[in-house]
Amino acid sequence: MGKSFSDRIKRISYGGDYNPEQWPKEVWAEDMKLFREAGIDTVTLNVFSWAALQKADYEYDFSKLDEIMEYVRENGLKVILATSTAAHPAWMASAHPDILRVNYYGQKRKFGARHNSCPNSPTFLKFAPRLAGKLAERYAKYENLIAWHISNEYNSVCYCKNCEAAFRDWLKEKYGTIEEVNRAWCTSFWSHTFYDFDEIVVPNKLTEETSRFETCFQGISLDYRRFLSDSMLHECALEAAEIKKYTPDVPVTTNFMHFFKDLDYRKWADVLDFTSWDSYPFFDEDRADVSMWHDYMRSLKGGQPMLLMEQTPNVTNWQKYNFIRRPGVVRLWSWRSVAHGADGVLFFQLRRSQGAMEKMHGAVIDHVGLGTTRSFKELAVTGREFEALGDTLLGARTDASAAIIFDYDNMWASEYCCGPSRDPEYKSYRNEVMRFYKALNALNISTEVIAEEDDFDKYRLLIAPIMYMVKPGVRERIERFVENGGTFVASAFSGIVNETDLVYLGGYPGPLKKVLGIWVEEIDCLPPEEKNSFVYGGKRYEAKQYFDIISSLDPTCRPLAAYEHDFYAGKPAVTKNDFGKGFAYYVATRSSDDFYFDFLSYIAKEAGVRPVYEAVPGLEVTERHNENGRFTFFLNHNDDSLEITLPAAGRALLSGENAAKGDKVVLEPKGVFILQESAK
Amino acid sequence: MGKSFSDRIKRISYGGDYNPEQWPKEVWAEDMKLFREAGIDTVTLNVFSWAALQKADYEYDFSKLDEIMEYVRENGLKVILATSTAAHPAWMASAHPDILRVNYYGQKRKFGARHNSCPNSPTFLKFAPRLAGKLAERYAKYENLIAWHISNEYNSVCYCKNCEAAFRDWLKEKYGTIEEVNRAWCTSFWSHTFYDFDEIVVPNKLTEETSRFETCFQGISLDYRRFLSDSMLHECALEAAEIKKYTPDVPVTTNFMHFFKDLDYRKWADVLDFTSWDSYPFFDEDRADVSMWHDYMRSLKGGQPMLLMEQTPNVTNWQKYNFIRRPGVVRLWSWRSVAHGADGVLFFQLRRSQGAMEKMHGAVIDHVGLGTTRSFKELAVTGREFEALGDTLLGARTDASAAIIFDYDNMWASEYCCGPSRDPEYKSYRNEVMRFYKALNALNISTEVIAEEDDFDKYRLLIAPIMYMVKPGVRERIERFVENGGTFVASAFSGIVNETDLVYLGGYPGPLKKVLGIWVEEIDCLPPEEKNSFVYGGKRYEAKQYFDIISSLDPTCRPLAAYEHDFYAGKPAVTKNDFGKGFAYYVATRSSDDFYFDFLSYIAKEAGVRPVYEAVPGLEVTERHNENGRFTFFLNHNDDSLEITLPAAGRALLSGENAAKGDKVVLEPKGVFILQESAK
Amino acid sequence: MGKSFSDRIKRISYGGDYNPEQWPKEVWAEDMKLFREAGIDTVTLNVFSWAALQKADYEYDFSKLDEIMEYVRENGLKVILATSTAAHPAWMASAHPDILRVNYYGQKRKFGARHNSCPNSPTFLKFAPRLAGKLAERYAKYENLIAWHISNEYNSVCYCKNCEAAFRDWLKEKYGTIEEVNRAWCTSFWSHTFYDFDEIVVPNKLTEETSRFETCFQGISLDYRRFLSDSMLHECALEAAEIKKYTPDVPVTTNFMHFFKDLDYRKWADVLDFTSWDSYPFFDEDRADVSMWHDYMRSLKGGQPMLLMEQTPNVTNWQKYNFIRRPGVVRLWSWRSVAHGADGVLFFQLRRSQGAMEKMHGAVIDHVGLGTTRSFKELAVTGREFEALGDTLLGARTDASAAIIFDYDNMWASEYCCGPSRDPEYKSYRNEVMRFYKALNALNISTEVIAEEDDFDKYRLLIAPIMYMVKPGVRERIERFVENGGTFVASAFSGIVNETDLVYLGGYPGPLKKVLGIWVEEIDCLPPEEKNSFVYGGKRYEAKQYFDIISSLDPTCRPLAAYEHDFYAGKPAVTKNDFGKGFAYYVATRSSDDFYFDFLSYIAKEAGVRPVYEAVPGLEVTERHNENGRFTFFLNHNDDSLEITLPAAGRALLSGENAAKGDKVVLEPKGVFILQESAK
Repeated sequence: MGKSFSDRIKRISYGGDYNPEQWPKEVWAEDMKLFREAGIDTVTLNVFSWAALQKADYEYDFSKLDEIMEYVRENGLKVILATSTAAHPAWMASAHPDILRVNYYGQKRKFGARHNSCPNSPTFLKFAPRLAGKLAERYAKYENLIAWHISNEYNSVCYCKNCEAAFRDWLKEKYGTIEEVNRAWCTSFWSHTFYDFDEIVVPNKLTEETSRFETCFQGISLDYRRFLSDSMLHECALEAAEIKKYTPDVPVTTNFMHFFKDLDYRKWADVLDFTSWDSYPFFDEDRADVSMWHDYMRSLKGGQPMLLMEQTPNVTNWQKYNFIRRPGVVRLWSWRSVAHGADGVLFFQLRRSQGAMEKMHGAVIDHVGLGTTRSFKELAVTGREFEALGDTLLGARTDASAAIIFDYDNMWASEYCCGPSRDPEYKSYRNEVMRFYKALNALNISTEVIAEEDDFDKYRLLIAPIMYMVKPGVRERIERFVENGGTFVASAFSGIVNETDLVYLGGYPGPLKKVLGIWVEEIDCLPPEEKNSFVYGGKRYEAKQYFDIISSLDPTCRPLAAYEHDFYAGKPAVTKNDFGKGFAYYVATRSSDDFYFDFLSYIAKEAGVRPVYEAVPGLEVTERHNENGRFTFFLNHNDDSLEITLPAAGRALLSGENAAKGDKVVLEPKGVFILQESAK
Repeated sequence: MGKSFSDRIKRISYGGDYNPEQWPKEVWAEDMKLFREAGIDTVTLNVFSWAALQKADYEYDFSKLDEIMEYVRENGLKVILATSTAAHPAWMASAHPDILRVNYYGQKRKFGARHNSCPNSPTFLKFAPRLAGKLAERYAKYENLIAWHISNEYNSVCYCKNCEAAFRDWLKEKYGTIEEVNRAWCTSFWSHTFYDFDEIVVPNKLTEETSRFETCFQGISLDYRRFLSDSMLHECALEAAEIKKYTPDVPVTTNFMHFFKDLDYRKWADVLDFTSWDSYPFFDEDRADVSMWHDYMRSLKGGQPMLLMEQTPNVTNWQKYNFIRRPGVVRLWSWRSVAHGADGVLFFQLRRSQGAMEKMHGAVIDHVGLGTTRSFKELAVTGREFEALGDTLLGARTDASAAIIFDYDNMWASEYCCGPSRDPEYKSYRNEVMRFYKALNALNISTEVIAEEDDFDKYRLLIAPIMYMVKPGVRERIERFVENGGTFVASAFSGIVNETDLVYLGGYPGPLKKVLGIWVEEIDCLPPEEKNSFVYGGKRYEAKQYFDIISSLDPTCRPLAAYEHDFYAGKPAVTKNDFGKGFAYYVATRSSDDFYFDFLSYIAKEAGVRPVYEAVPGLEVTERHNENGRFTFFLNHNDDSLEITLPAAGRALLSGENAAKGDKVVLEPKGVFILQESAK
Repeated sequence: MGKSFSDRIKRISYGGDYNPEQWPKEVWAEDMKLFREAGIDTVTLNVFSWAALQKADYEYDFSKLDEIMEYVRENGLKVILATSTAAHPAWMASAHPDILRVNYYGQKRKFGARHNSCPNSPTFLKFAPRLAGKLAERYAKYENLIAWHISNEYNSVCYCKNCEAAFRDWLKEKYGTIEEVNRAWCTSFWSHTFYDFDEIVVPNKLTEETSRFETCFQGISLDYRRFLSDSMLHECALEAAEIKKYTPDVPVTTNFMHFFKDLDYRKWADVLDFTSWDSYPFFDEDRADVSMWHDYMRSLKGGQPMLLMEQTPNVTNWQKYNFIRRPGVVRLWSWRSVAHGADGVLFFQLRRSQGAMEKMHGAVIDHVGLGTTRSFKELAVTGREFEALGDTLLGARTDASAAIIFDYDNMWASEYCCGPSRDPEYKSYRNEVMRFYKALNALNISTEVIAEEDDFDKYRLLIAPIMYMVKPGVRERIERFVENGGTFVASAFSGIVNETDLVYLGGYPGPLKKVLGIWVEEIDCLPPEEKNSFVYGGKRYEAKQYFDIISSLDPTCRPLAAYEHDFYAGKPAVTKNDFGKGFAYYVATRSSDDFYFDFLSYIAKEAGVRPVYEAVPGLEVTERHNENGRFTFFLNHNDDSLEITLPAAGRALLSGENAAKGDKVVLEPKGVFILQESAK
């Protein structure tokens, strides 16, 4: 493992994707001037240059990149160097068609677009790591090289013959024998028994699946998702290994895409030195989604500071409605990234391209080429703030005593499961996770986002929405967690299957029955217009979508709320089980935001989980700390001003003024206030 | 033809799909105990076991099935044995790719899913009947074998080279010469003249069709539907023939899927000994749909008792919202099947599978494995009721003096027709049939559901919704039917084409002009928001979708209602023609449920068609009779109690108590009451 | 170039597609009788007869067509003869598969449908022109042959190997070197640099595009659209050349489909002698759409009279809801065509076919075969009106001092552009053009519809909606136009790219900055529910979809309206620049119909553009003139009567009565009045 990203920098990084190769050199000088004005210190280079760097099988040309590397070093810029392998050259597709993917419909693609290489292509596996190695060897000497950026926004979907063969090998490695595959996948169903690994074909539209989200055979589809993620991760690791030969101390990353479904980022994080990612909220994106992305990305490397690799400085071009970020918003959002654990905030892109797909995507320097635009001037304010702070915040971490589980195996498997619903809105694992996370965020409770494999014992409160799949050892670890005083929360449709999607017999929620103290006899699922309700803490809430019917409770378990309608009126909708020194809660149905807020407010208090600040609509408050002290970030997402009361004495980090506990501070709309308390 | 199913049993069959091969033997004993508790006497075995039974081209292994057959016989269970050919083994797909289908988009599939064999594959046509024969030979000796279940839920859609060649042969057989094909398909249109059968290619997305429901050439698409249905029927018949060699007295069936569009069940019924089928209503399924399915399935074999092969005992998993059947509903629905002519009621499935596609589908024995669940206890009530009745109801038939035509050629052809609408809702043949059927059902009029080829003379009332295609001889048979005193009802868009989809010249409704006494000059079609209206019997009803403009009436014909708006205001919306001793009605537009109810109420009375009982909302009343008497089934679909007045003296079948004519009986919500009158 | 269509006729043509080859000869005589009754003088023959005419590679059979040609000549009918190449024979597809297209998904099609020939197929390019030549040679002697109809409703979409090779040649011809391709397409983006033309593959679903309307690489997709249109045009020109060898004086046409996106009709018009086209409005089609189609089609050949090749005489069959044209509508619409510049009005079809796709499509002679139907009698009225007028109107032209730009390159490129929106409604170039055209039409302002390449100097008012792409020389020509006193109007998202879709640097609207006097700093795009507003001329209008933020104005430019909300409140929404003797307006956002009406009403007056008649709801007034005088057409589209005041003295063309200026004339619903003033 290389050093962390934070160790390589002296201030919060600020800058982004830079493509001087698209421009004549007279423009470069103009860029440097504007970068200085905007407090920009970091450029990401070489993201899509494979075709320019490699012109034939063994013919490379680095002259242009050499020139750029020299130029930016001379101008005092830090460099994040991309390996350029996210899009192969046209000549390579023509000469080595194995590099082309086969799509979900079984059709061989031809050259085009990007993210276009088959993860199991011999050509790709040869030439991509080779290019990474050549770059590392060549530019190892640049001390302004602060990180490696492998490929770009990886994805991995292919169904070619090479993938089919590699999948069989992956299965042999995992299961050993074909009998074990048959058992794991329950192939006695629908006459699917295999007698030889070679009878197994890739699951897609021509075989088992009706869409990428629905399958006739969950076992093979689930394993193919795991396999594709692993395949691409293998390629990524090969690039990382080549890089490490020459620059062992320069940390490597690749930019994740928050909840991207095709890659199990939890596994990917293990081969990277630090997390970086891209944030592109939609016009109507819930604020909590973006906070969740941040917390998730930070949690992937155990809370180590991360890098926001991309956000737009003003406008996107590929969304349905590409709205301009309103005045103050980019600064607020940049600080939000820092508030959630980023030590760098970069943009796509620094200069707006003149042609092709992204020419209408915003940039720090627009087509007009001036530093006098509204957007540029705003960006410069933030850049100079970061510059002024120096290393004060670098390396700061966040204390979280609450954790929520976001587990790829669970997402994949629960969404593949046919029933109780096929409505994508009902099946959405992310939606259910967000119901709980949104409440935590509104309550200003610092939260980590973890997988089933992660350590539970660090937390006081552990929430597992749709823990459909309970992998080996998880039951024991949850029971220990609660016995030792932890608070555990699970929700409807949990405890159903094991790690290969075979149902736990003996009643739902299977291995969670003991800790939750309940037996779910039936699961009802009704259309959106069919609502039920329950009363919790004296207040009535709606129940909808899924309705677990709990028909027996352990003596230690008691109902906290009951359905009010239908034939299961009176059956518990929320339960609480006393288990060892802790409690285990079950939310047997789905409800609206107000329920999750009230419910988690109560149990967080009971569990001793302290919010960073009281809940105020539109106000987000987070905490980081390092040797320079404890930093409380107050972010006003409202369009109106807001008055806060300082919870402690310290210093207003941005103004440098002293602050006393109880002081009133007014945050302007979209305003940011950071309180620094001295290190304890 | 073998004996009827009813002859092979001693009580109403109760049970369902049973897959002990998926379970260890300790579970089998538990199953037997629970089956006895639930009054279950019948198991359907071997539905998807081809891969287990045949391991290579000529290598079979029946040991597991032998064991199961012995075990269930020892436990006193009846067996319905499936031939297991609904899903081929993976090794077979790998070794003989001709068994794989080519999909609608012209793509060769690979192994996966089920219903995956090409109907014209030499491999399939060799090995599937061979397996059926081997099973019949091996298990012929089991006297508890009450029926054969060929394949499962057949479908037939393939577009491969073998199908293309077979289609050309089918056309040669049907038309003799290429000139006759040209004439029948009207190929002078759009330069489609063929000079050789080999120029004909399958109609799909790569040739004539824009979707499976829209085509540029009706003639070829219509014939290809007929051909595919015939192809698969041919395979089914081969299996049946193999079976008959060894067990000539055991009746064969395959489970139909009520209105499944791809197979012309009317033709299929001829090669089967009795009808069986699967009933899976949706959450918002109209009650009349399900009654229609029953009446249709019963009518396919001339009213002979049938078997409900599958329904869910509590919940499905593959629907969008898989709702639990509320308390009392499964019993009510099971009795509804009997009320409409079933002598057996089976479930999919007896024990819930642990993995794959259907693991969340309900079962008699749930994952929890207990006989104490709400669902199990309810199921047992019905099972014991069936057990208690013995053979009282077996073989009972229903008298129907009303018939409605549901004709596959008409459905296929009218829906392929481009115009007057392309809105699937407007084009739906089933919807128009259901407008009339729903009224008959609400009126408690016993109804048969027949094809154009069936005998009309048995009925007093004959309804032909969208009789778009009038096949040879039909005109004459309708005219004779009405002349002899029958009442005939036709609806908009009728009398348009002959059996190869060529328009009858000389004015619509073509061959029906004479009997209906009208000429339809134009057909208007308006968007859903554009409504018209008419007054019938003093009441105003809406007119919508299609508006036939009748511009002349024969002297014997009179308008019963007229459009109130638009430029054809005053033109007839409903007409009645005196024809011989009978009447012929025409409904020139579409209306709402209340119209069909009022209209059919009137003409049924006029035609002397007597309801089984007066119409009461939510109450369904049907009749069956055999040598043990006449049975009137009162089914309360409401969520409230209902009081009925007994129309005759007799015996309450379920309680055994005597009942006098005029007695009041209260049916609880979802309640069932059966009145037995002595045989006359 | 041959003579114009108008020179070949003696009266307004009336008739349509006629397919006697589908009928026995006894029907032909009946047709002739009905044609005479209906004032029909013209038949379009041989539209889909390739399979009948050519039975093998070099085997032709014209005997049937000979007979038909003789028969219609004997009966005094004019003939428009089609070349029959819009659908190839089945045998040809079987023998020469290169004639089959490869679809957008990369799949080779098989025989079926129509418009099925690859534009770059050697077989097609050999046999189609050959057939056209044979027909011309054979029927040259028929003096009743008034025009050639090449193919039918051309389209051109193919992605086969032959197209790929031809595309590379087309690119070599256009760009010369691969370096120039790289520059033009901006291939340094996303690693797309090509080193050889052979690396270029067709852009489709398997390469660059996500749908036919969205692409990852605008440059290649834009050029491929141009290439496909050019390819098919090349084939059309080959047919025309063969025809000209034998009948140099008979004008050639092909029927266009108004706004059909795949063919650049502006280029196509150059190889045709006159314009003809098909008009099939939907139930809810805006009246202005149809007027626009007419004006566009007329403008394609510089205002020369055109031919309405197809409309339905009563009903279509392929639309979702095929409504009957209400009484009076077909007459009104036929006159509308004449009013907008047609010298002929034809129908699809004269006799309704008995089978296949279009059997439910209306015809002059219906399936009933009578001349007594409502529809036939109405059609005959119009036919006799045309007959009675003789050559009075032939050759008449329309004066237009207003022009609106509808430019295919702009439509293609602006809709391919990713951003500011991906909502098809927002991106629609046609919708934006129609916002302005609809106002011009409501104002009864005669308008031509031109491309960027056309002469601007003829007009006083030039409107350029979404002038996204400014091709070479356009800037200079617009500036000259305005300097000389013209009024120019542009709208949001203009002046963005050059002819290969590369952005003009230095600020939007690029080359239009000078003439418009503005700089657009940012473009906001908001969802439909997010509205803004502005006040113009004392009235408030909505602003929606796109919001150009103009942040500086030249001293000569002034805002006419400003946004009222959001952070750009106060920024101009409409501007006016004084430039030389003229004015240049910019509409920076999108608004509702009332704004465009009020705005264009004002600036048309200012520009000295005189309406033909004052604006009256539902009344359309147009003008044509020739040596017989000036004709003003008053068309009442309302369902109520309308009184007009004659603007000049003259003659009521249809009644022959004299009319004085100021006379009041009542137009019945759907009524037509034509005022003839003597030639000046």
